[in-house]
Amino acid sequence: MITGKNYIGKNLSAVGRKTYRTFNPQLNIENDFVFTEATNEEIESAVALASEAFKVYRTISGAEKANFLNAIADEIVALDNELLTVYCSESGLPRGRAEGEMGRTIGQLRAFAQLLLEGSWVEATIDTAQPNRMPAPKPDLRKMLIPIGPVVVFGASNFPLAYSTAGGDTASALAAGCPVIVKSHPMHSGTGELVASAVIKAVQKTGMPNGVFSNLNSTGIEVGQHLVKHPGVKAVGFTGSIAGGKALFDLAAKRLEPIPVFAEMGSINPVVILPGALQNSYADLAKTYAVSITLGTGQFCTNPGLLLGIKGEDLTTFVRHLSNEILKIDASCMLHPNIARVYEANKQKAIVQQGVTVVADADVDVKPNFARQAVATVEGTVFLENPTLHQEVFGPYSLVVQCENIKQLEQIISALEGQLTGTLIAADEEANKYPEIILALQNRVGRLIFNGVPTGVEVCPSMTHGGPYPASTDSRFTAVGTNSIKRWVRPFSYQDWPDALLPDALKNENPLGISRMVNNKPTISKIV
Amino acid sequence: MITGKNYIGKNLSAVGRKTYRTFNPQLNIENDFVFTEATNEEIESAVALASEAFKVYRTISGAEKANFLNAIADEIVALDNELLTVYCSESGLPRGRAEGEMGRTIGQLRAFAQLLLEGSWVEATIDTAQPNRMPAPKPDLRKMLIPIGPVVVFGASNFPLAYSTAGGDTASALAAGCPVIVKSHPMHSGTGELVASAVIKAVQKTGMPNGVFSNLNSTGIEVGQHLVKHPGVKAVGFTGSIAGGKALFDLAAKRLEPIPVFAEMGSINPVVILPGALQNSYADLAKTYAVSITLGTGQFCTNPGLLLGIKGEDLTTFVRHLSNEILKIDASCMLHPNIARVYEANKQKAIVQQGVTVVADADVDVKPNFARQAVATVEGTVFLENPTLHQEVFGPYSLVVQCENIKQLEQIISALEGQLTGTLIAADEEANKYPEIILALQNRVGRLIFNGVPTGVEVCPSMTHGGPYPASTDSRFTAVGTNSIKRWVRPFSYQDWPDALLPDALKNENPLGISRMVNNKPTISKIV
Repeated sequence: MITGKNYIGKNLSAVGRKTYRTFNPQLNIENDFVFTEATNEEIESAVALASEAFKVYRTISGAEKANFLNAIADEIVALDNELLTVYCSESGLPRGRAEGEMGRTIGQLRAFAQLLLEGSWVEATIDTAQPNRMPAPKPDLRKMLIPIGPVVVFGASNFPLAYSTAGGDTASALAAGCPVIVKSHPMHSGTGELVASAVIKAVQKTGMPNGVFSNLNSTGIEVGQHLVKHPGVKAVGFTGSIAGGKALFDLAAKRLEPIPVFAEMGSINPVVILPGALQNSYADLAKTYAVSITLGTGQFCTNPGLLLGIKGEDLTTFVRHLSNEILKIDASCMLHPNIARVYEANKQKAIVQQGVTVVADADVDVKPNFARQAVATVEGTVFLENPTLHQEVFGPYSLVVQCENIKQLEQIISALEGQLTGTLIAADEEANKYPEIILALQNRVGRLIFNGVPTGVEVCPSMTHGGPYPASTDSRFTAVGTNSIKRWVRPFSYQDWPDALLPDALKNENPLGISRMVNNKPTISKIV
Repeated sequence: MITGKNYIGKNLSAVGRKTYRTFNPQLNIENDFVFTEATNEEIESAVALASEAFKVYRTISGAEKANFLNAIADEIVALDNELLTVYCSESGLPRGRAEGEMGRTIGQLRAFAQLLLEGSWVEATIDTAQPNRMPAPKPDLRKMLIPIGPVVVFGASNFPLAYSTAGGDTASALAAGCPVIVKSHPMHSGTGELVASAVIKAVQKTGMPNGVFSNLNSTGIEVGQHLVKHPGVKAVGFTGSIAGGKALFDLAAKRLEPIPVFAEMGSINPVVILPGALQNSYADLAKTYAVSITLGTGQFCTNPGLLLGIKGEDLTTFVRHLSNEILKIDASCMLHPNIARVYEANKQKAIVQQGVTVVADADVDVKPNFARQAVATVEGTVFLENPTLHQEVFGPYSLVVQCENIKQLEQIISALEGQLTGTLIAADEEANKYPEIILALQNRVGRLIFNGVPTGVEVCPSMTHGGPYPASTDSRFTAVGTNSIKRWVRPFSYQDWPDALLPDALKNENPLGISRMVNNKPTISKIV
């Protein structure tokens, strides 16, 4: 049941006066639930509880944390239809998507539980003592990763489950041993509260310390700012716009004690179409990309917003096919009236730029909050000179750039801001001929895709979801996959520490049976 | 031979008009060499060359980079007496220290070469395709660490070799595949130029791209600021003061494209002396700590500047012994007149604080630039209330805090800023009794030492030299040891990429024979 209250640890609380509702974009009406924004006192309580909880939670075993994460997954599964219904009512997304995203959320939680049960993720590294080394004895040194402290998570509008309340950021931080305070997304606070109730149930069932998780409602920016500035908060995870992410990054850098902010922000995900690829497969490619551009109403951070090809008859044919294919696809609902409004405004801004030609614009009457998909095209020289065309249009829109030649293509790639992904479309053996294109693209992105689409972000250890700024605020980390846990941990060394007082991961006996680097060799053996 | 010029890639250049000299603190006179500060044009050239060099250098094999690093080590060895003499003349440090630091510098370069030759450091992670997975096929995904781009290194005044021109930051960045531009330290620009000449010789002998290394002279802050703001620079390594590190961190955060700054800054390295430890071994402990406090004239970032004990007769006896022991040690020379001046000023500021009692002050005539070592003491309550006493006094000074009880000791530990190290001095089995003290200390530091001294930073994989702010600007990394390479790399994924176009680390055949995670299992096997 949705109460509209905040979870300050396990306690429901709503002492504030500011309230708000979420919106059903399909029906174009407000939802019934009324949410109460967290007050300063509630924020202070949540952070104080998180700091206290950290003292206990950071010493809890991997097995216990795994049990907790699996319990969260179980409780989310138990929410079943209630959760899926609220999800749809607050996002306008179809039931199938809700089910898929719920599966992804549960899968992520269980993947982190598995990581914890296996245990080697702490990178235990041991160099044993050499008491007789000259000129000075070598001490015994043992290192492992330990949690950084309470983390604040800002969920994404476009992933109400998988990148929000108990999504990737929360799951990775809890796995790391960090308490989490979620700044609930105002567009899906009902979904958020239900998931938060699942987390709290799991906290209680598995005996985790109160305060290891809190969920705070807010509709403006104040709650988030207060949290990011709070000395008790030690790191921030964010998924959303460049403006939002950069604002939090700046706030965190200005603190007396600056803290890391991992923000996954915008991306236009350039797709490079080499000339040979168009000769035979333009029709299939057009179909595939019409689907990718409109998938989830274009509301994916990996949406292909920029297609780069070499000017010529083949590219013209491809653009014609892409336009036809994209117009065959039914318009669909966006997440919120504000998002639909901003999409239309940004699309308009992009297509009225000098030299831009609209080749497909679903200029039909659509239901309120539904997006009209569009494709435009522009010459390479014009694109290079107009930074407005490099900006993301969040929604089902893509721009085809017709480059003069390969050299200009490389120039354009190098002129792009940092991106989450880059895609190369090439005929057999064709890619071998353009190493400079591949290197230029690699320099601008976090993930390269060959003859595929950038949409669809696999959750697995080998995924990088991140990239050079502004794709993310720190390209040295990923937001997706089990390695995302690295954002919330720091290396820690014990020198000549008594074996009995070492954490299990570093004890001579290796009681956890994990893989460790001992004197520069990986091993699961005990130290004798 | 020292020319006083800048290395812009392989070219010696001195087009500027601003010149400066280094200083011999032992003789209290300026050295003969005249250095010309780099101009804006020279800075621009160095960055442009580094960006060009990166295009080639980032694709070079681990074996070639190892060859390069070993060649740098060889060329530094060849400098031999010339380098050691200049080192001493610019630092006031004794010959034995120069030799030790040269050994450390060479050892670091060779350790990174070894890391590259072994090759597994790139964390190759592969999840193979599952074309028949339902509801959607799983693509082939392969991830590894790749270099982030040109890195600017600011050397440390107190480590003219091991943490300067070709020290830990430079060695780790070059190992990662990043070109390096060194902002030479104005106190040891001669040492810097000699080492730079060794690097340039190695560049040429091993056929590395020109611009992979530059060395820029400067005596003010302008050259460093220009470099950190330059769009071509992608990361910064710094060792020095909190004010200096924070200024660079702020500059980097304000860029249009913010970049990571890893700054290793101040630390007072708290030493917690549990009551039992004083009952028998106070005399030995006093001797050991008198040496540690004065080692290198107290000019180590791991200098024990704060000793925390429980008030009582035992602590009083220890303080008396420590005072006696420290006064037996001869005064020694500081790195530079400015550093000697700041030491005296900071020491004075600390000891005139209300409630502080000086128990040892080598109040003798010392030669110019020599430091008078000192120990002071204060009550726990006074220390808690006066943040001035929490600040580092860079030099041979330490403050003994007499805590009321264990509870106050824990309070004091928790009130400290982030530190590089924390040390626990305890009698047999005594440490078991104070888990809350150990946890509080762990929360504030990067390395815990048991019954030892914090000075002496072993270079090995299990070392953490870093810690919560302001010990470093990002506690998630270490500045010492081969893991320091992680500061300059980012994860990168290839999706469905043709095997022939993958880097060797990710090819099916595993031609490098490295350890990889394949479908969640570590293996050196090929993929069939």
